[in-house]
Amino acid sequence: MAFAAEVDIVITTIRDLDFLEKWRPFFLPYHLIIIQDGDPHKTIKVPEGFDYELHNRTNIVELLGPKASCISYKDTACRCFGYLLSKKKYIFTIGDDCSVAKDPTGKDINIVEQHLKNLSKPSTPYFFNTLYDPFRERCDFVRGYPFSLREGVSTAISHGLWLNFPDYDAPTRLVKPLERNTRYVDAVTTISKGSLFPMSGMNLAFNRELIGPAMYFGLMGEGHPISRYGDMWAGWCTKVICDHKGYGVKTGLPYVWHNKGNSAFVNLEEENNGIYWQEEIVTFFHSVKLSRDAITVEQCYLELAKQVKDKLSLIDPYFNKLGDAMATWIEAWRQFNPDTDPNFSSSERPM
Amino acid sequence: MAFAAEVDIVITTIRDLDFLEKWRPFFLPYHLIIIQDGDPHKTIKVPEGFDYELHNRTNIVELLGPKASCISYKDTACRCFGYLLSKKKYIFTIGDDCSVAKDPTGKDINIVEQHLKNLSKPSTPYFFNTLYDPFRERCDFVRGYPFSLREGVSTAISHGLWLNFPDYDAPTRLVKPLERNTRYVDAVTTISKGSLFPMSGMNLAFNRELIGPAMYFGLMGEGHPISRYGDMWAGWCTKVICDHKGYGVKTGLPYVWHNKGNSAFVNLEEENNGIYWQEEIVTFFHSVKLSRDAITVEQCYLELAKQVKDKLSLIDPYFNKLGDAMATWIEAWRQFNPDTDPNFSSSERPM
Repeated sequence: MAFAAEVDIVITTIRDLDFLEKWRPFFLPYHLIIIQDGDPHKTIKVPEGFDYELHNRTNIVELLGPKASCISYKDTACRCFGYLLSKKKYIFTIGDDCSVAKDPTGKDINIVEQHLKNLSKPSTPYFFNTLYDPFRERCDFVRGYPFSLREGVSTAISHGLWLNFPDYDAPTRLVKPLERNTRYVDAVTTISKGSLFPMSGMNLAFNRELIGPAMYFGLMGEGHPISRYGDMWAGWCTKVICDHKGYGVKTGLPYVWHNKGNSAFVNLEEENNGIYWQEEIVTFFHSVKLSRDAITVEQCYLELAKQVKDKLSLIDPYFNKLGDAMATWIEAWRQFNPDTDPNFSSSERPM
Repeated sequence: MAFAAEVDIVITTIRDLDFLEKWRPFFLPYHLIIIQDGDPHKTIKVPEGFDYELHNRTNIVELLGPKASCISYKDTACRCFGYLLSKKKYIFTIGDDCSVAKDPTGKDINIVEQHLKNLSKPSTPYFFNTLYDPFRERCDFVRGYPFSLREGVSTAISHGLWLNFPDYDAPTRLVKPLERNTRYVDAVTTISKGSLFPMSGMNLAFNRELIGPAMYFGLMGEGHPISRYGDMWAGWCTKVICDHKGYGVKTGLPYVWHNKGNSAFVNLEEENNGIYWQEEIVTFFHSVKLSRDAITVEQCYLELAKQVKDKLSLIDPYFNKLGDAMATWIEAWRQFNPDTDPNFSSSERPM
């Protein structure tokens, strides 16, 4: 467990964390940051032996003051508060309806280890390698791959997948109630520069030092007209910024076993606006341009926030609030991470 | 074998086709177009029972006259002559050092059937689906995938992979003489719009009606300063044109079993200029733009030919010859396929 000191695991939940028992052998070496969603007066039980800190809404407001408005409530998007608090290089975040998956040989998958393999080795966003990740063991670049591109780029995000219940939207779940994912695809792939993807927060790891300030899960849940799109929002924003900065995004291994989630009927209502709006949101992200002045991730993110207000507020006034919240998030990031952005002088920092 | 009447299999070889015995149950339903490379006076034996036509250099010159100069000699790039001759919708082409691979359950893979599955279902080049090809059985689009993009686009190319000896370049083979590909990745992926890839001709299928006129393997082998890059050349040209036309390119399944090919030392010498030149060639293809007037694939290809002459001839005068040969290839295409391009009037057609 060479990397244990460099990783925090972030979990958000409204219930007792019995699911951690199944992860004990794999999560025990790591520090857990647990963000309790919903009623802060409810007591959440964490199985014994884990190294953890637990924060609820009361803590969030105490720590952030008025800036707490940027952290969602009654939606798993609140988990990004844990990204602010962490001091580690890598974050792994996982849904509380997930358990350990097995590889085709029947062996339990060490999920954090695989994410760290993905993150610690380069990505190849500028040219597709047909044998997938050339930095895996027993693999390499194939004939015709330019040698000048074989160094690759730093990997910012590792997106893992799901066996059993796939991460489908509510309409697809309603149409295909019996569909399960049984296909174990033994691959890790870099998503090409310029291509967007649907980033699920169910099984996700990232390099906090590289992309942390953009890993904001937006305004979802109570008080907002949209839910269940926090991870998607973060995926679109981070991918555009990774492309601008020259960082890589990988998807594929490791798998998690996804147990049945919420009712598809409930999800349908929650996803309603997201399903409408994503068409225009994706069009926006496909065409968004960041300026040459946007050097740090924080600068990129503030430029993006402004464009969200300018362009997406034509869809709904909600996006004005979201753009403001994105700027507030960066203020909160600087409060907890005053030394991470060398392009801001200390006088500009709020703390 | 519902598609048998729509498929030709194109093989190029300098030796007796004993390898076909291994493919008998899978290739017997299809018509084979065999392009004999090298000395046309040598007799090539084809195992009994196959439906085939065999062409050698003498035939090529007889059929094409002076235009035969665009067909390579002493290089597997000569195989594209078979694409001209075919009248079928789909072409499958395979190396003569390949045999039937097995899937992880031990079952022989029906390679043509899988290529036809890939080609007959849409591609998704505008947004990455994290569970890979959403048109495979027991799969779909995941949460966050825009609904407006779920129709996909027509698939023009299906690029299959290799177990045992991977398709490495000579330097990689020399550095890793013992490396074998044992990883069966059970996936088919659309290569994103704007992303180039190294297209190997070892296990390749395409829709001739959609992309045939761009599937030219260039000037390789005898009389030219480059070899073993015909498939790469076709891959770069076709991908740029597929992106322009809105067609998709898939890679992944089906696998072939690749037996040991030529000596890595011989390949090193043959690949020498390709390895140098590919750096600038890829830069060129990354930035190339086709005009709005380029509506048909033939028009796209002629625009590309002109730009190859204008820009790549700065690397080496060879690219002037190659650009001319690309234009000659289109003339040859029209000779054999006079009815395929509705944007050329009959008076413009050379035959």
